[in-house]
Amino acid sequence: MPTTSPPSDLEIARAATLLPIAEVAEAAGLRPEHIEPHGRHVAKIELAAIDDLADRPRAKYVVITAITPTPLGEGKTTTSVGLAQGLQHIGKRSILAIRQPSMGPTFGIKGGAAGAGRSQVVPMETLNLHLTGDFHAVTAAHNMLAAIVDNHLHHGNQLGLDPRNIAWRRVLDVNDRSLRNIVVGLGARVDGVPRQAGFDITAASEVMVILALSTSLRDMRARLGRIVVGYTYAGEPVTAEDLHAAGAMAVIMKEALKPNLMQTIEHGPVLIHAGPFGNIATGNSSIVADRVGIHAADYLLTEAGFGSDMGAERFFNVKCRVAGLQPDAAVLVVTVRALKTHSGRYRVVAGKPLPPEMIEENPDDVRAGLANLVKHIEIVRSFGVSPVVAINRFPTDFDSEHDVIRAAAEAAGARVAVATHVVDGGAGAADLAEAVVAACAEEHEFTPTYPMDACLTDKIEAVATKVYGADGVDYTPAAARDLARFEELGYGAFPVVIAKTHLSISSDPTLRGAPTGWRLPVREVRAAAGAGYVYAIAGDMRTMPGLSSAPAAMSIDLDDDGEIVGLF
Amino acid sequence: MPTTSPPSDLEIARAATLLPIAEVAEAAGLRPEHIEPHGRHVAKIELAAIDDLADRPRAKYVVITAITPTPLGEGKTTTSVGLAQGLQHIGKRSILAIRQPSMGPTFGIKGGAAGAGRSQVVPMETLNLHLTGDFHAVTAAHNMLAAIVDNHLHHGNQLGLDPRNIAWRRVLDVNDRSLRNIVVGLGARVDGVPRQAGFDITAASEVMVILALSTSLRDMRARLGRIVVGYTYAGEPVTAEDLHAAGAMAVIMKEALKPNLMQTIEHGPVLIHAGPFGNIATGNSSIVADRVGIHAADYLLTEAGFGSDMGAERFFNVKCRVAGLQPDAAVLVVTVRALKTHSGRYRVVAGKPLPPEMIEENPDDVRAGLANLVKHIEIVRSFGVSPVVAINRFPTDFDSEHDVIRAAAEAAGARVAVATHVVDGGAGAADLAEAVVAACAEEHEFTPTYPMDACLTDKIEAVATKVYGADGVDYTPAAARDLARFEELGYGAFPVVIAKTHLSISSDPTLRGAPTGWRLPVREVRAAAGAGYVYAIAGDMRTMPGLSSAPAAMSIDLDDDGEIVGLF
Repeated sequence: MPTTSPPSDLEIARAATLLPIAEVAEAAGLRPEHIEPHGRHVAKIELAAIDDLADRPRAKYVVITAITPTPLGEGKTTTSVGLAQGLQHIGKRSILAIRQPSMGPTFGIKGGAAGAGRSQVVPMETLNLHLTGDFHAVTAAHNMLAAIVDNHLHHGNQLGLDPRNIAWRRVLDVNDRSLRNIVVGLGARVDGVPRQAGFDITAASEVMVILALSTSLRDMRARLGRIVVGYTYAGEPVTAEDLHAAGAMAVIMKEALKPNLMQTIEHGPVLIHAGPFGNIATGNSSIVADRVGIHAADYLLTEAGFGSDMGAERFFNVKCRVAGLQPDAAVLVVTVRALKTHSGRYRVVAGKPLPPEMIEENPDDVRAGLANLVKHIEIVRSFGVSPVVAINRFPTDFDSEHDVIRAAAEAAGARVAVATHVVDGGAGAADLAEAVVAACAEEHEFTPTYPMDACLTDKIEAVATKVYGADGVDYTPAAARDLARFEELGYGAFPVVIAKTHLSISSDPTLRGAPTGWRLPVREVRAAAGAGYVYAIAGDMRTMPGLSSAPAAMSIDLDDDGEIVGLF
Repeated sequence: MPTTSPPSDLEIARAATLLPIAEVAEAAGLRPEHIEPHGRHVAKIELAAIDDLADRPRAKYVVITAITPTPLGEGKTTTSVGLAQGLQHIGKRSILAIRQPSMGPTFGIKGGAAGAGRSQVVPMETLNLHLTGDFHAVTAAHNMLAAIVDNHLHHGNQLGLDPRNIAWRRVLDVNDRSLRNIVVGLGARVDGVPRQAGFDITAASEVMVILALSTSLRDMRARLGRIVVGYTYAGEPVTAEDLHAAGAMAVIMKEALKPNLMQTIEHGPVLIHAGPFGNIATGNSSIVADRVGIHAADYLLTEAGFGSDMGAERFFNVKCRVAGLQPDAAVLVVTVRALKTHSGRYRVVAGKPLPPEMIEENPDDVRAGLANLVKHIEIVRSFGVSPVVAINRFPTDFDSEHDVIRAAAEAAGARVAVATHVVDGGAGAADLAEAVVAACAEEHEFTPTYPMDACLTDKIEAVATKVYGADGVDYTPAAARDLARFEELGYGAFPVVIAKTHLSISSDPTLRGAPTGWRLPVREVRAAAGAGYVYAIAGDMRTMPGLSSAPAAMSIDLDDDGEIVGLF
C-alpha cells in the first residue's frame, strides 16, 4: 500500500515551531535551577536534578532495539522519536534518551542522525554539529592523557612504561583513515620518543564509555583514574591515576557529564548524552541521562545501538546493572526490507538504492527472513522483559508483507504494531504506544544473562550461547592467556562486551537470519578498566572510519543566506 | 612601597557575585534577540547585532599592548580588565575585547588566563575550559580539511598534489611535543598514503586566524575556500575550495563566528573571541567582536599579544585595516621587573621565582632598562595614535622606581599612570582611565607603516626598519624566491606578519632594551592565503608546545564537592 512521499526532512524541520527549551524542561518536571541554557533550543541538566526528582514516581523503562539491520539502518532513532511522540499522543508523559551523533560520519557517508520526517529531534543541525561540546571534551580529555603518556616517556619514563605496550591511542571526531597507524615522536631530541601509535574516532574513546557509564561526577573521576594506559616492561598495568592525569581529565569532562535536553518536533523532551561505539563499546546513551529521565515522565524510552544481540544485550547486562535500573519492555524495530534481506536473496549496500525487485510485493521473501525476527524476540524474552515488534512502515511496503510479520511475531510471544510516524508523527505511532503500555503492564522479571560473580570466560560463553545461539567459544592462545591475566588483575568482576559484527547475530557478517551450528572465535581480549568492562574481539573492528571518494562533506555548505545546506 | 598581599585570585573570583549575562548584554546596548545564552554566565552574540547597533555613536578604540615582556608576562590582560573597570569607575561605558585562552598551555605551564585579583573575567574556569567550543570548532574544521587532503591522495590524487609539498598540518588544543613530527598513512593499503606530517596547537591554525580576521559569515566562507593546502607537482597551489571542503568547514565554524560575551568582576561587558598565535599569526582577538563592540560603549578596549612590536603592530597594520576601524590610543603596560630585566642585569625564567635582588629598591636598574620603554612609545607614536604608559604596580615596587619611569615616558611624549587594579579593582585604574580619556581626545591621525599596494619585500622592510629599528632585511635565497613567487600568485596585495621572538624588539631573544645595528634575517616565507597575509620567519617558531616534567595538569583536580582546584 504505497503512500505519497512525505515532504523532505529539511522542510519539516525548518517548518517546525520549537518551544522554548525552558518549557520543555518544565513539562518534564525539571525546575529552572536544574537547567542551564546552551543556545535557544538546548539546555544542560544539572546532576542535582537526579536527587531532586527522586521522590517522583518511577517511569516505565523501555529500550528501543532492532532486528539485525541492513547497512542502511532500519529507522531505530526515527521509531524511538515516533514512539515518544506516540505515547504523548495517547496521553502519556514520555521522555526519550538517545546518543549524541558523531560528527565524523555526519561528514562521511551517513548524513544527519536526528530521526526523519515527522519524527525528528530538532534543531537537527544543532544535534549533528558540536551540540554542547561533550564529544569535544572527550577528545580533549583523551588526548591530554595521551600527551601525558608520551611526556612521561620523554622525561625519563620513571614508571617503566613499555613503549611497545601502550594501549592508549589518540582520538579525533573525524573520519580519517590516514591517522589509523602513525609514528609519533619523530624529529629532534626535544620532540619526544619515537613509537608506533594511532588515532581512533572519538566515539571509540574509553572516556566516551566512561561518560556513558558513570553514575555521578565522583564516579566519573574514579573511573578516569582507573584507565589503564599501558603496561610496564614487567607487565604491570599503569593507570591515569599513576600519571596524575585523571584529575585534570575530570576537570575537562565536568560540564560534559550534564545531560543535554532537546525536543521532538512535537515538543516532547529528549535527553541526548554520550555516544560510545556500538562495536567495541556499549553503544548506549548515558546512565546519568536515564537517572534523570526515570523520574521525569511516565515512560523513559532509550535507544540501544544495532540489533538486540548488540546494544540491547549490553543495555541489559551492563548499563542496567551499573545504573541499578530495571527495564520493563523492549521495542524491536523491523522493516520489510531488512526481513527481505535476511532471506539471503538480496544484497543491500550503504549509499546505494535498493535493488528494484526488493520493493515489489513479496510476502514470501519476508517469510524467508523471519528467523531473524523470531531469534531477536527470543533474545529479548531471555532477559525477562516484554517484547513489542514495531513495523516501521515504508511507502513501498504492502499489507500482505506486514501480515506475515505480525503472525510470526505474535506466535513468538510478542505484541506487534505498524507505525507510520515518519509520515504521521506521533499519531502514526499511537498503536505502537498502546502496545508498549500493555507490554509494560505485563508481569515481568528482569533476568540478566550471567551473574556478575561468574568468571570472564563464563560470561563470554553465556552471551555467545544464550544470546547469540553459538555452540561455544574458541579462544586464541593469546586471548586465553590475557583472560587469565585479567582475572589476576581483578577485572574478573567486570561485565563483558563482545566486539563482533552487527550485520549478523553470529560473528560472520555474511550470515543472515538466525545462524546456528557456529562457534564464536575470540581473537583477542582487552580491558577497559576505567569504563569497567572486558571486551572480547571476534572479527575485524574498525575504530577509525575512512572517507569515500565523494564524502558528504563535499556537498555540505552555507547558502547565500548563511543557512546550512546538504546536511540531510 | 610594598602593600599587603591581596587575597588569592580564586578566593576573589569565587566570592564575586555575577550579574545574569542578559543584564550585562543589556548594559552594552544589546537587545534580547542579539544574545543566545550558553550556560548561566556566557552568551553568544548574533552577528546581526553589528548592523543593528550601527547607528549608535562610535566608541573610542584603544589597544592594550606592552613593552617587551619577560617570560612571565607583565599583566596585560589584567591591566586590560582593570582599565575597563577603571573607565566604568569614572563614569564611562567601556567594553573589553580579548582572546580566548588556549587549553593546551592552561594544562601546561601557564595556568588560567583571566586576569588577576580584583581585575578578572569571571567565571575564570568557564573562560579557561572550552568556553562555547570555538577552539574545538577550529580543531574540527581544520582536521576535516586535513582528512580530505589525505583522502584525496588515497583516492587517486586527481589534482596531482605533491605529498612532499603539503602545507596543511593537523591541530589539537593540547601541549604535545610527540605530535610535532609524525608519519601518517601507515598500515595496509586501505589505511591511506604514507607521508610525513605533524600537528600544531589549535591556536596556530590558519582557521583560527580566519576566525579572527573575517568580517562576516560570507567573508569567512570565502577565506576558508582560499586556504592553500599544498602544491601540485607543477608547483601550483591547491585550495580548500578545489577540494570541495570549504563549505563543510564553514558549516562547522558557523556558530563559532558569533563572539562570546562574559563580564568583569565589576560586571562590565567582555567580548571573548578567537585566539590566534602571537608569533606566526596576528595575536589579536576577532574583528567581528570589535565590530560589535565599536558601537556598544564609549570606549572599546582590545588587547594585542606580546609587545607593541608584535601584536600591536599587527593590530594596526593588519587588523584595523581589514576591519576598517580607526584606532585612537594605545596603552603600553610596563612593570618595574620588566624594565629591570631590560637592564641586562637579571635573568627571568618562566615558572621560577624572581632573583631576590630584583625586588629590592633600585631605580638605577629601572633607568638602565628604559630604552625599551622609549622605543615602544616611539613605535606607538609612529602609528599616529596617542600612547599611555600604564605602570602595573606590584607589591614589591618602590615610588622611586615609578618616578624614573614617569619622567622618561613623559619626555618621550606619553601620558603615564600608576595602576593598582589587581588590589583595588576599577578604582585602582581610575588615573589610568583618565589618562586614556585624555589621550583619545587628543588630535591624532592613524598612519599604518606601509601602503597596502607596496610589494611584499617593501612591506617586510618597512616593518623591520620603521617599527623594529633594524638596519635592513637579509633573505635566504629560498625566501627571496618564494616572495617573488607569491607576488606572481597575487599574494603581493596581502599585509605581512613577521614571525620573530617576542622577547626582544630584535629577532634575537637575548637582546634586551632597544637593539640597534642589527639586520632582520628572513629564513623562510609562507602564505596564509585564506587568512590573507604572508608571514616571514625570522627565528625558530614553535607551533606545538611541549609539557614539562611536572605540568600544571598534574595538580588540577576536582575536590570532594566537585569544585575545580589547582587551575590558578
